[in-house]
Amino acid sequence: MTNQPNPDEPIRRDTFDRDGAARGTARMEAFADAVFAIAFTLPVIAIEVPEGGADLLAELLRLWPSYLGYLIASVVIGLYWALHHFSGAIYRTTGHYLNLATVLFLTMIGFIAFPARVFAEQVADPVHRADAAQYLAVSLALTAASWLIKWTVGRRTGHVDTRLDPAYLHRLDRKYWLSTGVLILAAALSFLSWQAGLAIAAAVTLYYFRPPETPRYQSEAPAVEGEGR
Amino acid sequence: MTNQPNPDEPIRRDTFDRDGAARGTARMEAFADAVFAIAFTLPVIAIEVPEGGADLLAELLRLWPSYLGYLIASVVIGLYWALHHFSGAIYRTTGHYLNLATVLFLTMIGFIAFPARVFAEQVADPVHRADAAQYLAVSLALTAASWLIKWTVGRRTGHVDTRLDPAYLHRLDRKYWLSTGVLILAAALSFLSWQAGLAIAAAVTLYYFRPPETPRYQSEAPAVEGEGR
Amino acid sequence: MTNQPNPDEPIRRDTFDRDGAARGTARMEAFADAVFAIAFTLPVIAIEVPEGGADLLAELLRLWPSYLGYLIASVVIGLYWALHHFSGAIYRTTGHYLNLATVLFLTMIGFIAFPARVFAEQVADPVHRADAAQYLAVSLALTAASWLIKWTVGRRTGHVDTRLDPAYLHRLDRKYWLSTGVLILAAALSFLSWQAGLAIAAAVTLYYFRPPETPRYQSEAPAVEGEGR
Amino acid sequence: MTNQPNPDEPIRRDTFDRDGAARGTARMEAFADAVFAIAFTLPVIAIEVPEGGADLLAELLRLWPSYLGYLIASVVIGLYWALHHFSGAIYRTTGHYLNLATVLFLTMIGFIAFPARVFAEQVADPVHRADAAQYLAVSLALTAASWLIKWTVGRRTGHVDTRLDPAYLHRLDRKYWLSTGVLILAAALSFLSWQAGLAIAAAVTLYYFRPPETPRYQSEAPAVEGEGR
Repeated sequence: MTNQPNPDEPIRRDTFDRDGAARGTARMEAFADAVFAIAFTLPVIAIEVPEGGADLLAELLRLWPSYLGYLIASVVIGLYWALHHFSGAIYRTTGHYLNLATVLFLTMIGFIAFPARVFAEQVADPVHRADAAQYLAVSLALTAASWLIKWTVGRRTGHVDTRLDPAYLHRLDRKYWLSTGVLILAAALSFLSWQAGLAIAAAVTLYYFRPPETPRYQSEAPAVEGEGR
Repeated sequence: MTNQPNPDEPIRRDTFDRDGAARGTARMEAFADAVFAIAFTLPVIAIEVPEGGADLLAELLRLWPSYLGYLIASVVIGLYWALHHFSGAIYRTTGHYLNLATVLFLTMIGFIAFPARVFAEQVADPVHRADAAQYLAVSLALTAASWLIKWTVGRRTGHVDTRLDPAYLHRLDRKYWLSTGVLILAAALSFLSWQAGLAIAAAVTLYYFRPPETPRYQSEAPAVEGEGR
Repeated sequence: MTNQPNPDEPIRRDTFDRDGAARGTARMEAFADAVFAIAFTLPVIAIEVPEGGADLLAELLRLWPSYLGYLIASVVIGLYWALHHFSGAIYRTTGHYLNLATVLFLTMIGFIAFPARVFAEQVADPVHRADAAQYLAVSLALTAASWLIKWTVGRRTGHVDTRLDPAYLHRLDRKYWLSTGVLILAAALSFLSWQAGLAIAAAVTLYYFRPPETPRYQSEAPAVEGEGR
Repeated sequence: MTNQPNPDEPIRRDTFDRDGAARGTARMEAFADAVFAIAFTLPVIAIEVPEGGADLLAELLRLWPSYLGYLIASVVIGLYWALHHFSGAIYRTTGHYLNLATVLFLTMIGFIAFPARVFAEQVADPVHRADAAQYLAVSLALTAASWLIKWTVGRRTGHVDTRLDPAYLHRLDRKYWLSTGVLILAAALSFLSWQAGLAIAAAVTLYYFRPPETPRYQSEAPAVEGEGR
């Protein structure tokens, strides 16, 4: 399945034999965007309007664990969306196996708001917060692993833009392996010290607020599609 | 309604008389992707955060039927999405009847997470699991039938790319008829032996993990759209 | 606001003065498709998994009002989606007022599954079904009225393709006015006889299963975008 | 990060150094549209079908606070969608920081239906309506602030179309700063008089029913993309 297309020729529907029909990434991105958007927005409906005791504002403030859960999910899903937006510039096409790996990754994206909510609702409870933190740390590690699988499948099946500088692609490989490795260690560590494990998982996640390295090409970089017009 | 367009001429808005306005498939795919994405992601909100007894982690693990229901729905919906992504490369245009058949198919996609959840929640219960398996097997058969209807309507109304090799299209016809037929038999069999019926239905479903045959064209294959750029 | 663009010249961002920035319809359609898809798929999560008495299959069958509500919503929303897909071939551009009118229409689309569910849940109850039918008939009339407003705003603000045959556009005008008028009469009639009112409303709705008239152009019809590639 | 692209040259993937991969705005808009659509449509599932006492229609009318909450959310989200549709004509590209600022803005869009629902459910209750109004006014101010942040990040990172007239862009700057400032003042005022605060917040919101100023370019305006075809 290493039928690398020639970068100087147009890619055709039948370029990747044994990988279904080669297509541009537009539809894979549209499906992913919709899953991201739903996973991002759904947690709000789990917030229940308070009955309204003497002081409604105080009760609305007491909902802070719900707001926190929504914020954690927004940060995690938002950062993965930005990463997926970026990686959409790295792929030229998609095929059957990359589609299936994308589905696997999106299964984790659709799920991640749940452990975020569990953690936010238990963080103030000394009895349960260690369990909730471990559950969140494990979920973050599984999500990173599903990203790494997707990335690796895309690399192996030849859908990454062959005009990119190989050294640049190797730096991306290393970055994703390293992030996943550290998140798996953080998940394991959380069973010894949930504070330490979660702190490391949070640090890796927040690291992705930094912009990814601008792509390096072997020749002139491709022009941006559409240009917002 | 067999007004086959000439493959060498551009298809125009009025090419398919009595079939509404001919359009490219982009918007049909966008609508389908959104339905796929919602059906895929929604089941997670049905998972309830446990109250938190003595051991929260144990309670989170006891939610395994919810995770299983989400996974079954993800696999079924994800495989149909990959199939729909592939078939988007087979159609050139869409019209009114193919749109309506797509809506019928999407009605089943939007529903399928429900029998998956019913099955997962009852699989450990010896009293109810046969019923739940039959319900799931019948739902899988109906979903396959709605796919076959959609495919057949697209074929009959002339929206499939006429540049494709007819032998290739006949192989697709056969594959979809066969899958649907076996799933209907599996649904019937599940009332005699739910294990046998469900095993066959699962086998047909998992068969679609294999990549579909790469399209064969009578002439040079069309270039891939966009190329992720 | 009747600054009709010249059909032989490209439409520019500033073509429609006092109507925001003129843009192609792609993004309006993407937003509409997402609302259609959510309204279409959401009703399923309102279906509750039965607790499981002696006979689970019988209980799953007793959920028929939920299935019926989902089906009614699917038919209504699916037919409006097909109509919107068609009308997307009629507009060339969109502007601020057409966007706002689209939002109004989508507000009704997002709502219509609720009266469908109310009706389905009460249809077997002799005490309440008249009320539920009236509620559904009024909602269908309001949805049709919001469609007519959207269509009229698009016509008046110059976003309809000026290459279309004016007689063809007048036939569409007449069709939408007539449908809306009959649905309003049906809603009024439902307060005298809910059976008669609802039957007429259903007849108008089901009429839209028929394909809309293929567009007629003054010159050669525009080529189909994308062609599914 | 002020690497302004030359308006006469194509923008390339590596044009904006230290800002990830430059891409057209299509995917950012698709993600935003999906979040808008979900936030817009979700509130309907929070409406519960009445049990059905003696008079079902009367009970359906007693649900007016739910309808009002849905309407308020539709107006606010619909107007922001129209504004975002418009501003999509102002940006040419997007990068990492503008993506993150968009995620921040969408976090508020995904949330805003909740305070709308709280307000609608309490507006008839003399004890709680002041609190609910303050909560809504503060949420509207935060949403406007997140919009302003997104706009400012887009301006500073060079993604706004450089062919636009600078005076026109300054008028947009002023408009967004002014709206946000007044909404923050309205939120503060709502703690003195909830009626006055909410009236001003409503006036600012409803002001956006007016079309935004049609873009002014230094040279000929760009042609509209797609033209609905």
